[in-house]
Order: sequence, then structure tokens, then C-alpha cells
Amino acid sequence: MSPAISQRGITTPESPIRKLAPYAAQARARGIKVHNVNIGQPDIVTPPEFYQAIREHVDKVLRYGPSNGLPTFTKSLEQYYHRNGYRHIAQKDIMVTTGGSEAIIFSMMAIASPGDEMIVFEPFYPNYNGFSKMAAVNLVPVGTNPETGYNLPPRDTIEEKITPRTRAILICSPNNPTGTILSRDEMSVIRDLALKHDLFVISDEVYREFVFEGVHTSILAFPELSQHAIMADSLSKRYSACGARIGCIVSKNVAIMETTLKFGQARLCPPTLGQVGSTALVDHGDKYFADMIAEYKHRRNTVYETLMQIPGVHCQKPPGAFYVMVTLPVNDVEDFSRWLLSDFDLNGETTLIAPGPGFYATPGRGTHEARIAYVLNSDDLRKATNVIKEALKVYR
Amino acid sequence: MSPAISQRGITTPESPIRKLAPYAAQARARGIKVHNVNIGQPDIVTPPEFYQAIREHVDKVLRYGPSNGLPTFTKSLEQYYHRNGYRHIAQKDIMVTTGGSEAIIFSMMAIASPGDEMIVFEPFYPNYNGFSKMAAVNLVPVGTNPETGYNLPPRDTIEEKITPRTRAILICSPNNPTGTILSRDEMSVIRDLALKHDLFVISDEVYREFVFEGVHTSILAFPELSQHAIMADSLSKRYSACGARIGCIVSKNVAIMETTLKFGQARLCPPTLGQVGSTALVDHGDKYFADMIAEYKHRRNTVYETLMQIPGVHCQKPPGAFYVMVTLPVNDVEDFSRWLLSDFDLNGETTLIAPGPGFYATPGRGTHEARIAYVLNSDDLRKATNVIKEALKVYR
Repeated sequence: MSPAISQRGITTPESPIRKLAPYAAQARARGIKVHNVNIGQPDIVTPPEFYQAIREHVDKVLRYGPSNGLPTFTKSLEQYYHRNGYRHIAQKDIMVTTGGSEAIIFSMMAIASPGDEMIVFEPFYPNYNGFSKMAAVNLVPVGTNPETGYNLPPRDTIEEKITPRTRAILICSPNNPTGTILSRDEMSVIRDLALKHDLFVISDEVYREFVFEGVHTSILAFPELSQHAIMADSLSKRYSACGARIGCIVSKNVAIMETTLKFGQARLCPPTLGQVGSTALVDHGDKYFADMIAEYKHRRNTVYETLMQIPGVHCQKPPGAFYVMVTLPVNDVEDFSRWLLSDFDLNGETTLIAPGPGFYATPGRGTHEARIAYVLNSDDLRKATNVIKEALKVYR
Repeated sequence: MSPAISQRGITTPESPIRKLAPYAAQARARGIKVHNVNIGQPDIVTPPEFYQAIREHVDKVLRYGPSNGLPTFTKSLEQYYHRNGYRHIAQKDIMVTTGGSEAIIFSMMAIASPGDEMIVFEPFYPNYNGFSKMAAVNLVPVGTNPETGYNLPPRDTIEEKITPRTRAILICSPNNPTGTILSRDEMSVIRDLALKHDLFVISDEVYREFVFEGVHTSILAFPELSQHAIMADSLSKRYSACGARIGCIVSKNVAIMETTLKFGQARLCPPTLGQVGSTALVDHGDKYFADMIAEYKHRRNTVYETLMQIPGVHCQKPPGAFYVMVTLPVNDVEDFSRWLLSDFDLNGETTLIAPGPGFYATPGRGTHEARIAYVLNSDDLRKATNVIKEALKVYR
């Protein structure tokens, strides 16, 4: 006899980004070099000042920190937002979280009861599924399409999904997995709907620095949303410090800050060492980001150009983040992705991609798409896409 | 207009351990030295090998680690459990979590749907309230009493609280806040109820090393509970590394490990640096713990003896953990605790205690009790309890 797992546990999907990992491991065991473009793990060096600050950290007892973060660190975040033009954001509007993940989980729990709904635009970051299952909240997908650059559908298409149980609209710009950046006009549509229907907006801006063309419009740029906007941020991508597990919630809504702090008190505190390291990066400014963005833009161009040369393959040139959703001439991208690892190699090399269906909530969508994270240098990216090109010639 | 906070957000209590912190800050601002015995923050030095390993960590990119923890670290945990006699625990039965907090949250979510129930013995660790609110699970309290050393009530008293919605019994031994250690007989009662009613047992064993008298019986000592037992552990107290945020789930139930891993994948990974430091402590064995336990036992004796000399004050001599629940001759311990900070000092010193009601779910219970964490050296503990002694003479 064994007691039963909960419904939310059963219905939480495996990460579509990580679930092919065992096949990749088997390929490696056969001596094949696998290009990992499945996961958003940058190869950019973490700034040495991060490690240096931790090495110089002298507190002999690694104590609990404050539940909302070390004051020196939240002060440095305040400076960061001020430098980015959001001078109305004060230290008290910032709560440090264990990664951007916890920022979104706490936000969901603070505003929704079990069975409540949140509107999300698909394709979307698959871990929103896990977060919503944990919080027992229902995600209501609104579709976007490769043909229209994954931009938002007309306002009416969004509005008709709003029900009495809708608590929030969840947006992500620059977007994971599409790289799309919401324009000021699109953000204004979200704003109008939030105000009209009194909804929260959870704005996932963890790729806020990763802008190649156009302008990123933060939810913080709408002071009229002071009571509705909850921004989820992360230092993982900004400073290539994913393993530090440091993010934050930013909101002018006092009740949101008080409520997420209560959840924060329950889990005691975010990791101290990651905060110590991150505090040292407060002055990492324009030059650091300019170099990093130039490198990613170069990679973006490489991956876009090489993909578009493959017969039957389509993608938009993503203006932000470091992902591209690519449409492949296959009927079942899950099968193709697995086959790349189990049955194919090009001179001893193959490629691990993230199959599209995991990024959609609507059954049947995404079966011809895959996400590629351009987190490798351009040479390796060229090899990774070349694998796809040659594989498509022999698949079926 | 401002959209509403969720019911779970509204009903999540503030931490009773941390909510008096503002009064303590005001006392400090008036130049008063405050003895903090409210919070379980050890003053024991974190082993230097922990920091040394982090200083020597050479990975230039602080990457995401595996969602279930770094393999080197889970291997070291396997060794730790083997050394403690649980040789049936393998690496695959261990998942690293962001502190013991996340271990309990993930366990609750894996086994209970919103509205399901878990039996818990009060007084209990107040953060169980926050965890259960996040998971939308109802805690059903079963009372224990100072007069009986906070040991378990008869089996029938527990069993009558079991309903069709009961999913688990949540135990904590050595106990926070009482220091009580469940005997083998008491653990056997829990086992019998779990098997009879097919319930999970979540066993919070984060104080497993802190045993001054008697023997700690782990849930892992019952192989017949292999499908029912979920152990939540933490390195925070064991190595005085609270700010590292490293804990783990241990279970032989494959479905539990698969389900909690899915939640773990959603939040990506536990903090890397805390794992790197903790791995270096795998060989910290008998001598380290013997010294630490001797120091805490000395403190326990100090705090017990000084408290029992105060007229009208009662407590049991706690056999484990590093807390004592003390019964004070006051009608409203919340008022007394606040008053200690706002209106009293003894030669410029006062004491911050954790009022009892926050450790109970039953209204009206705990109004004469407070938790004292003996995490200071014996001299300071003597001063802290002396403040209480003198304060009681003038209060009212």
C-alpha cells in the first residue's frame, strides 16, 4: 500500500527543457558531442567581482538574513532601478527572492486562491506550468503565432478570456521562448485591461537587458499601474549567475509587499552568499552590458542566418532575450528531438533542442516548433544548427 | 482601485518569531542592549572548511546545477545517512532543497490538494502555518501539554482527528519549540496510524543532532514505512549555516521523489555555493558534533536552572533541539513580550522572546508560554533570563 500523490503533483508536467537530458547523457556515453541549446544557461563568465566579494565575506557565522533581503543588497537594487529611470522605486518596494522563480510563485500565491485564473500568452516559459500547479491556479492561454512574430493578438481576443475568476495577466518581455519584445502600444493594451477589469499584471522581466532592436518597456513605466503591477526580476541572466538563485519582486502595492513578505518569513531568507556577490555588481553598468549584448546579438545573427538557410525552416529574427522559436519541417518535433540524440550524429556531434509542445498549454500546438537558446559561441552555434540541417535531410 | 489580495495571503500569519523585531529595533535605538533569544540563529562558528571550499570553487560561470542537487553533494549526504545507520538510503532517495523550508513545502504540495488536511502536534514550528497557507492545506492541531513534557497524547486522541481528507501526519523531533524527543514507542504509534489509514508521515528532523538525553528515533528507522515516510532535513543547524539555504528531502517512495523533482525543475535548482560549501563538511563527524552538543547542553542547563529559580516560572528540561517552552506567570504573554522591549530594561539590557500563541493553532492556547532559543553563550543567557526574572517583579 502506498498513499496517493496529489492531483497537482500528478498534473505538474516534467520540464520539457530538461526531460531529454537522459537521451543526451546516453548520446554522450556513446562518445557523441552534444550541443546544448535546450536550456538558457549562458556561457558568459560571471563577473569576477561577484566571487571576490564572497571570498572577502568575513562573517564567521553564515546567519539567516532578513526575509526581504540584505539591506545593502536591496539598496544596490534600488540604485539599479534608479539608473534605469525608475526613480519612484524605493528600497521598500523591493523584496529579494530565491531566483525569479520564487518571485513569480510568491506573486501568484499572494493574488490568487486555488481555482483562480491567470491569463498567459502562449508559447510561454514552461515553468509557469509548475508554478501554477504549486499554487493551484489555472493558466488560461491566449495564443500568439509565428506568422505575426508572436506579438499580442487584438485586445478583444484577450478580453474575451477574462472571467470573474481572472486575477492577473502574466506577461514576459523580452520573451522566453520567442524573443519578442512587447511594444509600448501592446503594453498599453495590457494596462487598459488591467485597469478596466481590476487585474494584477505580473511582469516577468528577467531578460530586461537583452534587447537587440527596439525598446523594452517595463511595467514600471506605467505609474498608473502602481497598485496593479508586480515585476519579477532575476540576476541569473543579467550577471550570468544562475546558480546564485537571486531574484526580486518589485511593486508599489503595499499589500503585495506585506503579503509576499509573510511568505518570505515562512521560508526564512534568500541565500546570503548570492546576495553578497550580487551587491558587488551594483556598478556594473553600460560597458559590461554593451559588451554582453553585442556578443548575444552576434550569436542571434549567426543562429538566425544559419537556420533560415535550411530548406523548410522558418523563424523570426528575435529582437530580445536569447532564444528563438524555430518552425521545423517535421510532423512531430518531440520525436525528431529525441531522434537527434538517439539515432543521429554528424561527424560525432548532435544537438539537444527544446521541443515546442511544452511551451504551449493548448493541446496540438507547438508540434512543428522548437526553442533554441543561443547561449553558445558562434562557432558552436553554427555546428549545432548544421546538425539540424543535415539531420532534416535524413529524418524519415 | 486596487485588486484584492488572495485569502491565503490575508490569512497567512506574520512570523511570531520575527514580528517583535521592530520593537527590538526601537529599544536598540534607545541605546538598550537586546538579548535575542527569539530566533533559532546559532552563534556557533560555521566550519571554516565551508568557506574554504567556496573560495576554492573555480567554475568561472556560476551555472544552474541539477534540480535535485549537485551529484557530489547528494553523494556526501548519502555518506552522512550511512554513517548514521541508514544504509538503505541511496543517492537517488535524496533531493536537495533550498533549506528545510522548501523540503516541507514541496512535500506538502506533493501529497495534498487544496483543502486536504494534515495532523500536526501543537505547539508547533509557526512556519508550518505559512507553508500550509501557501499549499492551501489545512493543519489540524492535536494538543500536547507542558504538564506532560509535550509528549504525544494517547493514540485515540490522535486517531479521532483523522478524516477522509487527512493526507499526512507532520511530526518534528527533536521538537521546535519544545525540545521534546519522540520515543520509539511514540514513533511506533505514528507508524501504526500511518499504515492503518494509509497516510504519509512528514518527519521534520532538522534538529537530529541536538540530543542531550535519550535517543532520537528517525522516521528512516522504520523500513515498513518506505512508501509513507518523507524526511525533511536541513544543514542550517547542523553546521550553523542558516544563510546557505540548503536542506533535503529523503524518501524511498519513488513517486514522491519524481513529484518533488518536478517542483524542483520548475524552480530550476537549489543554491550552488551553499552546496559546494556543504560538500566539504561531509567528514565533519563525531568530534565536531560532540563539541557542539556539549556546548548546547551546557547552555540548556544554564537556561533551565536560571528559569526554574524564578518564582512562578515552569519549564521542562528539554532533552533536544535548542529551545525551551517556558510557562510564565502572566496573563497575556504577547503584552509582556512587547512590554519587555518598549518599557523595561535592567541596567540598559532587555530580552526578546517569542510569545507562545504563535506556536498554537487553537485560539487561546499559549497565552502563558514563550519560546526561548538558547543560542547565546551561557553568560548572555544568564543575563537574558535575569532580565525576565526582574521584569516579572515589576510587570503589573
